[in-house]
Amino acid sequence: MERSPLARPFPAAPSIAGAVPRVARAHYKTWDRCDLTYVELDEGTSVAGVFTKNVCCSSEVEMGREQVRLGRARALVVNAGNSNAFTGYRGREAVEQIMAQVAAHLDCAPSDVFVSSTGVIGVPLPKDKAEVGVMNALAAQPCDWEMAAQTIGTTDTFAKGATASAMLGDTRIEISAIVKGSGMIAPDMATMLGYIFTDAKVSPHFLQLCLSAANEATFACITVDSDTSTSDTVLAFATGHAGNEELVDADSPGADAFAAAIHDVCRQLAHLVVRDGEGAQKFIEIAVTGAVSDESARSVGLSIANSPLVKTAVAGEDANWGRVVMAVGKAGEPADRDKLSIGFGGTWAAKNGLPLADYDEAPVAEHLKGQDIRIDVDLGLAEGSATVWTCDLTHGYIVINADYRT
Amino acid sequence: MERSPLARPFPAAPSIAGAVPRVARAHYKTWDRCDLTYVELDEGTSVAGVFTKNVCCSSEVEMGREQVRLGRARALVVNAGNSNAFTGYRGREAVEQIMAQVAAHLDCAPSDVFVSSTGVIGVPLPKDKAEVGVMNALAAQPCDWEMAAQTIGTTDTFAKGATASAMLGDTRIEISAIVKGSGMIAPDMATMLGYIFTDAKVSPHFLQLCLSAANEATFACITVDSDTSTSDTVLAFATGHAGNEELVDADSPGADAFAAAIHDVCRQLAHLVVRDGEGAQKFIEIAVTGAVSDESARSVGLSIANSPLVKTAVAGEDANWGRVVMAVGKAGEPADRDKLSIGFGGTWAAKNGLPLADYDEAPVAEHLKGQDIRIDVDLGLAEGSATVWTCDLTHGYIVINADYRT
Repeated sequence: MERSPLARPFPAAPSIAGAVPRVARAHYKTWDRCDLTYVELDEGTSVAGVFTKNVCCSSEVEMGREQVRLGRARALVVNAGNSNAFTGYRGREAVEQIMAQVAAHLDCAPSDVFVSSTGVIGVPLPKDKAEVGVMNALAAQPCDWEMAAQTIGTTDTFAKGATASAMLGDTRIEISAIVKGSGMIAPDMATMLGYIFTDAKVSPHFLQLCLSAANEATFACITVDSDTSTSDTVLAFATGHAGNEELVDADSPGADAFAAAIHDVCRQLAHLVVRDGEGAQKFIEIAVTGAVSDESARSVGLSIANSPLVKTAVAGEDANWGRVVMAVGKAGEPADRDKLSIGFGGTWAAKNGLPLADYDEAPVAEHLKGQDIRIDVDLGLAEGSATVWTCDLTHGYIVINADYRT
Repeated sequence: MERSPLARPFPAAPSIAGAVPRVARAHYKTWDRCDLTYVELDEGTSVAGVFTKNVCCSSEVEMGREQVRLGRARALVVNAGNSNAFTGYRGREAVEQIMAQVAAHLDCAPSDVFVSSTGVIGVPLPKDKAEVGVMNALAAQPCDWEMAAQTIGTTDTFAKGATASAMLGDTRIEISAIVKGSGMIAPDMATMLGYIFTDAKVSPHFLQLCLSAANEATFACITVDSDTSTSDTVLAFATGHAGNEELVDADSPGADAFAAAIHDVCRQLAHLVVRDGEGAQKFIEIAVTGAVSDESARSVGLSIANSPLVKTAVAGEDANWGRVVMAVGKAGEPADRDKLSIGFGGTWAAKNGLPLADYDEAPVAEHLKGQDIRIDVDLGLAEGSATVWTCDLTHGYIVINADYRT
């Protein structure tokens, strides 16, 4: 696939003390690339995670949910090319084999080894290839985050990473993070996988709080095509090497700065996934205000972001606010047609349920020609608000998902 | 637009005694066609209706909901080319004017006159054009149902009608029905409007029971693109001229036959709307069994039917059952990955959560080349079942909704 026109260069993501990535070839598919990523984590690393809500999830997700509760991690293994989803007990055995192999090497508990897989569904991950791939990775030279980001990708058209730092008292902590996904979608159903690494010293409990809160406002607020993958996973690892006083709760010194930094990288990663949405030509930000609650605002925002009619209108550079009205109304959330206002790129097209008499379409038309589109919706009911992000729906989406055969 | 490849010829829909259609030009748009449909109904006509659940609905829908409660109708007016939605008090005034104009002509209550509108949103229906259109229609010669079906259409590529009959004791009753819509969608957001006319004598209460029950299993089970219109309306009118003993409840003689006939025409109309889905190349039937309830089965079915990944896979003639698994899992309904079975065209591809070892893709590939596609999903949990219908997602959809400008 061609590189997305909305692509961003990979950032200068710093090394994280205590988190060392390596990549290798497992040959999960007949392709000439590395497809197994291994990140070794020093003892004492905290972990937190958020996972897909899809009830037909993979063994990796089922097991990951349990492992995260224990709060510690020593390694991450990511397989690209095979999602291992819908593969029953055979799929689970393959994951357990990888965990055991790495645990033996590190002399740790198998539950300290986190495994993710992404790619074709319904084919058990081949154990022999996994074993060779892990062996190769354990023997490989360390690599940088960009190489790791490339290796976890499948149909991604560019490597995606983010970075942030924060001062916790006098201690500077670093965060480097990578993500893969072009929506929930690909020729064989891809997944969104995200990994965040920091040298901060953080209790697993507080790390989970930060990640869950950030997830709600970032990954949970993006959509490419409304299709929820069976393998979506975001994990955060904190090695504790920065030397700050351990963050254990919201009252710890520097806790706010750390939470903000986690939120920042999550938002960066989430935006990058949308920017690699299949067929995407435009990045769309939808800000909903005046809802009865933040949750209601997000639900309205996602109804708009998932509407094929709104997405095709943006693709056609058409300020079709009637379609936005329709999508607000179908969300099933409290809304009053006669209090609804809609704008594009900062220009209101309709206010209080009526098209504006002096609506000037010229600046709106100009805005819609750009790559970054902003839609404002005010429900006029209360103070709830949310922002969601999506991309437009173009011929490229159909080409990728219908014209190419698996 | 080209005629849909899935089009069906208009049926030989009989005249209904006491229901006389006429069409006229209101010139709502600069087009060379009739765009106002008027159906005069004899005194004593019962009415029932179901309406969009979109909370940003049009004045026509708001008023229609109230009028249906009174149970009687003398006329139907359908405006094509302007949906009159999101037009505030000015839109409401236009509807009231039409009701008053027809009521004066028929010497009936304005609430006996039902009005629907379909087309562009956000532009108040012009009162002067409506007045001339109604005047022209009142003076026009009666027409047949096919002409009425054509006239209520907007972006429809073929005129859609259905017919059924039933024996109520010794009395034969007839039903003729028309519908418009290519999904919930069009260059300017279209609507699904359906009208059912019968000469049976039926109480408004029982007519509503029959229509509501049929709606749940037909119109509520179709989707083209998941976008719910602000104006969806289905009305049923019973003139009572057939001479049967009045149907007042489920115990009346012939009640079952009548209910079945209403269900039959509703299913025909619903299928025709899918067959004119924007860009549709294939008609897809999705049968879900083994759910915890019929409602749960329908929800799972609609999750599959609304999945862009499933719809593009069918467009690509790709038996991608992994995408069906994903769509089952994201529905939010009870499901157990390890009890799930999926088939195409009568051939199972996966059973009990595993791909079938002896799965023969040849008959499936052959089936997917056809125009009528069948997907079976068994959840293996209980006895709930439902069937839903949709079309594939193709370049035609993008062409219609993104490439053309309003």
